[in-house]
Amino acid sequence: MTENKFMQTALDLARQSALEGEVPVGAVIVKDGEIVSTGRNRREYGKNALYHAEIEAIDSACKKLGGWRLWQCEMYVTLEPCPMCAGAIINSRIKTVYYGASDNKAGSFGSVVNFNDLPYNHKPQIVGGIMADEAQAVLTAFFKELRNKKK
Amino acid sequence: MTENKFMQTALDLARQSALEGEVPVGAVIVKDGEIVSTGRNRREYGKNALYHAEIEAIDSACKKLGGWRLWQCEMYVTLEPCPMCAGAIINSRIKTVYYGASDNKAGSFGSVVNFNDLPYNHKPQIVGGIMADEAQAVLTAFFKELRNKKK
Repeated sequence: MTENKFMQTALDLARQSALEGEVPVGAVIVKDGEIVSTGRNRREYGKNALYHAEIEAIDSACKKLGGWRLWQCEMYVTLEPCPMCAGAIINSRIKTVYYGASDNKAGSFGSVVNFNDLPYNHKPQIVGGIMADEAQAVLTAFFKELRNKKK
Repeated sequence: MTENKFMQTALDLARQSALEGEVPVGAVIVKDGEIVSTGRNRREYGKNALYHAEIEAIDSACKKLGGWRLWQCEMYVTLEPCPMCAGAIINSRIKTVYYGASDNKAGSFGSVVNFNDLPYNHKPQIVGGIMADEAQAVLTAFFKELRNKKK
């Protein structure tokens, strides 16, 4: 499955975040079957509330493609987007979002709320649960290690 | 009123956006009564979906204060935040948001939805309607001119 190929890249980015001590989330933006940009969570090291994987990937894709509309693009992200990232996906008109694990604390495409049920002016197609077990395993391992370090 | 002083600065930034051909929105972040950072909408010229006033102000405040938590800060913004910006406000833990005009298309602190009614992990205090007439007038004048140009 093509979805799995790109999600695998997003998972590799998430693992890189984990090695850096960040909550492991990775994102990839694809256009015409080619990777346009990538992002990973860098909030702690970057000391910036905006440094989520999806924001980094959208920022980089806009710069690379030279415009704010990413309507021909798909995003692959290991975790269901938070409200900031779900809003950025709406604002950038991304066509389809494939996500891995659900996020019952902040997930805004189905878990806490589904932004597509609200009257915003763009409704990306959402496909959740892509390689969800792997995505969840990366998160679980990270938080387990974090708890062990704190003991 | 102190609120009006900072909102006036935000309105000046919005007017600057309008002069640059951007939908006029301005934002100011304040800590201990001092302006920490400012932002204005630069989406068209910047060719980037992320370049909203609030995002620019949050990015700059995180860089200036050296951390992702802005919990001692207030934001003054001329227009009710969209989902991306409302999510960024939640993620950065901003304490209070004062906004001017309501936005019935994307406003996410009361108009389309109120994020504070959803179980996200931070609920900023929201005060809407600060200098709302002036904020609305700046937007109305911009869109009127835009329509005239298209005729």
